[in-house]
Formats: sequence, C-alpha cells, structure tokens
Amino acid sequence: MQTLNVDLGERSYPIHIGQNLLDQPLLGPFIKGRQVMVVSNETVAPLYLDRLRAQLGGFQVDTVILPDGEAYKDLDHVNRIFDALLSKRHNRTTTLVALGGGVVGDMTGFAAACYQRGVAFIQVPTTLLSQVDSSVGGKTGVNHVLGKNMIGAFHQPQLVLADTAVLSTLPERELSAGLAEVIKYGLIHDADFLIWLEQNMPALRQRDPEALACAIYRSCEIKAEMVALDERESGVRALLNLGHTFGHAIETDQGYGQWLHGEAVGAGTMMAADLSARLGWLDQADLDRVRRVLEAAGLPILPPDSMSADRFLELMAVDKKVIDGSLRLVLLKQLGQAVVTADFPMAQLQSTLTAGPRLGQG
Amino acid sequence: MQTLNVDLGERSYPIHIGQNLLDQPLLGPFIKGRQVMVVSNETVAPLYLDRLRAQLGGFQVDTVILPDGEAYKDLDHVNRIFDALLSKRHNRTTTLVALGGGVVGDMTGFAAACYQRGVAFIQVPTTLLSQVDSSVGGKTGVNHVLGKNMIGAFHQPQLVLADTAVLSTLPERELSAGLAEVIKYGLIHDADFLIWLEQNMPALRQRDPEALACAIYRSCEIKAEMVALDERESGVRALLNLGHTFGHAIETDQGYGQWLHGEAVGAGTMMAADLSARLGWLDQADLDRVRRVLEAAGLPILPPDSMSADRFLELMAVDKKVIDGSLRLVLLKQLGQAVVTADFPMAQLQSTLTAGPRLGQG
Repeated sequence: MQTLNVDLGERSYPIHIGQNLLDQPLLGPFIKGRQVMVVSNETVAPLYLDRLRAQLGGFQVDTVILPDGEAYKDLDHVNRIFDALLSKRHNRTTTLVALGGGVVGDMTGFAAACYQRGVAFIQVPTTLLSQVDSSVGGKTGVNHVLGKNMIGAFHQPQLVLADTAVLSTLPERELSAGLAEVIKYGLIHDADFLIWLEQNMPALRQRDPEALACAIYRSCEIKAEMVALDERESGVRALLNLGHTFGHAIETDQGYGQWLHGEAVGAGTMMAADLSARLGWLDQADLDRVRRVLEAAGLPILPPDSMSADRFLELMAVDKKVIDGSLRLVLLKQLGQAVVTADFPMAQLQSTLTAGPRLGQG
Repeated sequence: MQTLNVDLGERSYPIHIGQNLLDQPLLGPFIKGRQVMVVSNETVAPLYLDRLRAQLGGFQVDTVILPDGEAYKDLDHVNRIFDALLSKRHNRTTTLVALGGGVVGDMTGFAAACYQRGVAFIQVPTTLLSQVDSSVGGKTGVNHVLGKNMIGAFHQPQLVLADTAVLSTLPERELSAGLAEVIKYGLIHDADFLIWLEQNMPALRQRDPEALACAIYRSCEIKAEMVALDERESGVRALLNLGHTFGHAIETDQGYGQWLHGEAVGAGTMMAADLSARLGWLDQADLDRVRRVLEAAGLPILPPDSMSADRFLELMAVDKKVIDGSLRLVLLKQLGQAVVTADFPMAQLQSTLTAGPRLGQG
C-alpha cells in the first residue's frame, strides 16, 4: 500500500492506494462516531458492499443504494440520502462512506457537506476515474438540468481508499473514461508522465496492476499538489479542467449518462488541443500525439456530429469558469503545461467548434 | 445608523442597523461582480423590492419571488433559485440578496453556499426575528419532512442590512415571534438586558423605533460575540438554541408554518426553564419572570395539548444536538446564564413534557 497526503492544514487527509484494501481494517480509525451510512449504487453494491461492511463491525451501519448513472446525479437523489440519514436517526457525528464511482462520490460528499450543515465522509472510489480524480480534492455536487455540477460544495473527505483490485470488474468503457483524466495530468503538468502513458497505454488497458497503481499514484500526486495550492479553485486548480468546458457541453447536450464524463473529456481535450494549435501554441506533431494517446486509451476524439457551434457556445456560457460574461478555457501552452485564458479570438474558437472530422488536423 | 462587526477573520462582515437603510447606497460596495439575484417572497416583494432595486443601478438585477412561509423552506424551492440563476446565466461572481424574513434568508444563503460551490450573498432581513437572529452568523439551510433545518451549510454573508423602518409593516404575531429570540439573549447571556426587556416590552410591542433599535443592536451584539467565538457551533454557540430543541419538535409536529418559529421557541423556552427549575437551578420567582416576559411579548407559553411526551422524545431524537444517542439540551443555570447539557434525569424531562397547563408552575 502506498499513501499520499493531501495537505490542507486541519482538513488534510491521506489517500491509500493498493491491492485489496477493501479487506483491510483501514476505515475504522477515520470514523469518529458510532454511526456509518454507506452510499453505493445498484451495480457496485452487489460486488463490494459486504466486503466493506465486514470491516465495520461495532458500528451502526446503514446503507443507501442509488440507481447507477450520471442521469441520477441530482437533488432528488441526494434527498434519498437525507431520507435515510434522518429515518435512521444519524446525528452530527455520523460518517458517510461513498462506495462507487464519481457519481456516488460527488453525491455522497454533497450530502455530507449539507447534512446537519456538515458531517464527515470517506471516499472508497471503485472506478479508475474516481480513483484518479473525483474522489480527491473535496469537490462535491450534483447536476442541474441547465448545467453540470452547478450545485455543490467544497467538502474534504477524511480518507480516500483506492483499492486497485476493484478495477478488474470495471467495464471497458469506464476504464477508458478514467484514462482520459490520467492523460489530462500528463498534458497539463508533466510531459514525462505523458511519455510514460504513451508507452504504457497497452498495459493500462490490459489492467496490469503495477501500471495501474503507478498511473493512479502519479495522478493523485499531481492532483493533491494542485488542490493543496488552491483548495477552492481560485487559480491553479482550474487547470485540472482541461477539456472539461467542452466536455460538459457535450454531456449536457447529449443528456447525462449518454456520454461518460471521461469520454466527453476525451473529445473536449482534443478540442482544447485543437484551439491551442490555432493559437500557435501546439504544432501538428503535438496534436498528433494528443490524438494518438486519446485513441490508444479507447476514447472518442470528436464531439457529436449533431452539436453546432452555437449549441456549444450556448452551453459553455454557463460554465463555472465564465467570469463577468467572458468565457475562460484551459488551453495548452505546450504538452505538459496548461493555462487558463479568456484571451483568444472568438473566430479561432468558432473554427475549433466547426472543424468536424478535421478537428486536430491543423 | 449603527454598525456592528462580526469578527470572523477573512469572513468578517458588518451589520448595519438603522431607519430607512433600504433607501441608502449601502449595498453597492459589497457586490463584487455585475450580477445580482434578489430573492424575496410574495408578501415582502410588493412592499420593498422596488426600493431595493433603486439602489442597484448599473448591475444586472434578476429576481426570484418565492411563496411566503416556512412550509416552502425546502429543497424544491431552493431549486427555483438555482433555476433562475442558471436561466439568467449568473456566474461565480454573482451576488444573491435575501430580501425577507428568516425563511428567505436561510434559503437564499443556502442557495448561495451551493451555487457553483459558493457565491456571495447579502442579507436584508425584514422581520424582527431575522434582524436579531437568523440573518447573522451564517447558518443557512432548509427543512426536511423528518426534521427542521437538517439540510444546510455554514455560509457567511458579505453584509447584513437591518432597516428598522420595515418593522412598521410587520404583523403582530411576527413581531412577537421575533421578541422570543430577543428574550433568549437576555436569558442565556445578559441578566441586565432581561431586566431592560421586562421594562420595555410595552414600548417594543408598540414599535417604538428607539426601543426596537436598542433591542436589535444588543441582540446582534450578543450573537456576533458568540458566533465569533464558535463559528461552526462546536461549543458556546449552541447556547443560542435555548428553547429550540423543544420548539423544533413543536414546529415539526404541527407542520411547518402553523406555529411561527418564534412562537415555538417561546413555548420551548418555557419548557427549558421548567426543566431547569426541576433540576434546582431556577426558583419559582425565576420561572414566573420567564413566563411573564414571554406573555408580555405576546408569546404562547405552553406546547400544543395534542403533543404527548413520546411524540416530543421521538422528534427531539433527530435534533442536531444529539451526539451518539444522548439528547443534549440548552438549560438555564440562572437567569442570564445558560449551559448545554445531557446530564439530567430522564424522569425530570418526562415531568416537563407531561406538565400540561402546570408547566412552569413548580
């Protein structure tokens, strides 16, 4: 087991990464009270809930099983968590445990942020995407019909437990979706890690445990560093959103759950790279590398045919990075270095949005 | 105009108290961006919305008008605020303004806490209760069918603007409800203020502007002091809940909006005093003073006949002050000094809950 620390003063917490951590007594020390509410979904609960419960002897353990999917990441389903907490009389010292992917983690974290104005929670992410990204950093929340992740809170967990063994049951598409976020860390912050990913993508897709552990560790390390610098995303943390403004627009347009978040981020990353090239920051060889690594990860590199430039602009106008009306995007100064900028000609953005199958081809 | 400061480091903010503050340019300096969303209700908006808007020239000003009453303080109605923010494309630099009583303030503050994971808000309380209590201190939230204020966040406003002139249109019952919280400050923290209240209750009920300003200022001063000591209610701040555990049970049992919050706190305060006397901390003369000052304020001093002791215990078991199963109550060591304690015989609590019309009569 490897352990990373997210350094946030009194809100600091460890991330444990390793094989079969679910079967080890790692949760107990992070539970203050006597009550635990495990939140999971219909897919994950049958696989792992009993194993998790076996480590929670001596506590009052209740469970909420939500339907599986981004389509259910809304206030109504968070309210089901509140229903369970109140009907089982959980008090302020309760601890919520999120057992599932990013959707379960985001909803459970938000419920923990709001229940009795804030209780403790633990993340037990069961997808690659949630292990490398969404379980770390304290962003929690739900979608609104008019925008993704528009309702939420910053609320840090007590502990993140990333058991790499659970990735063996992950569907192929979900693995690829997680790799989109892993590739992101290379693109925004670490050119050497990008090279490592280019070389190890086949091993990662074959779920080589050592390669996965390595990718998860480095991803969490980069994320922890950025979160420690900027917990509430007033600066550098925004770089973690490479591809996300385009990606969120795709997700919203297609309806939550049609495209996986990581798939939308994949296409969105290609769009961000394309615009970066139009600004003269990347050359064709860079674009080709971005496209190849996304393709090697099994990710889509083009947005849906049906989405017009106007539709993108309409949906991107509600992005959280919009400040006083000007759209800010995360773009690449070079491979391994990102910036947040509103300083690009609208005509270049239009070109990216209307590139169609020529996206990323200069 | 008098100004108090709530001292919370980088989250510090002023409370302005005075006549006709709505017509003065006091909001502008506290609005960072260019967008403002005013949230009000169907009763208050026709009276004061235009005057508030007149002070917001130069900003994009949108409004949400909610139905009036505690019965609507729920997630569904907070979602209406999100609907308005998203459909009008408010971004992270927006400022929400709560124009109304405690319900509007709690919901607006909670919406501000959650919209895009936290935006700014300003409280413009228009009831006595919200001016002396709920607008100060950053407690925000909504009710759940199984418990009052069970969903929420700590989120401090940028400014509280308490215009005492608006109290002239306040219904009699609402004025009395606000006085319950004013009396509370005397009982928990300031025996001299309690004496002042006993002497000035007729002037307060006649809405003498000077008496009201004095009561509001001293109430906010005590609250600001306790909030500064304990922002997230891990200690002394809990004393502000005198009468509230009993009161919340009454509100939940009767259905939100049947008893006003302050009315339930009135009866709850009498119950807390009764139990304090059973523990030997107050004598009959003290109990008589508590009853008389509550009656002079026009408040109920008995809980509903229909509520059994079992019903109280059932509802109080979900109170936020319950820790690991033991019920903690705010009680009075003497008039002017409160404690939070779980150390009372259940038999004495039962006696208070079954006292009926003999409550507070030794």
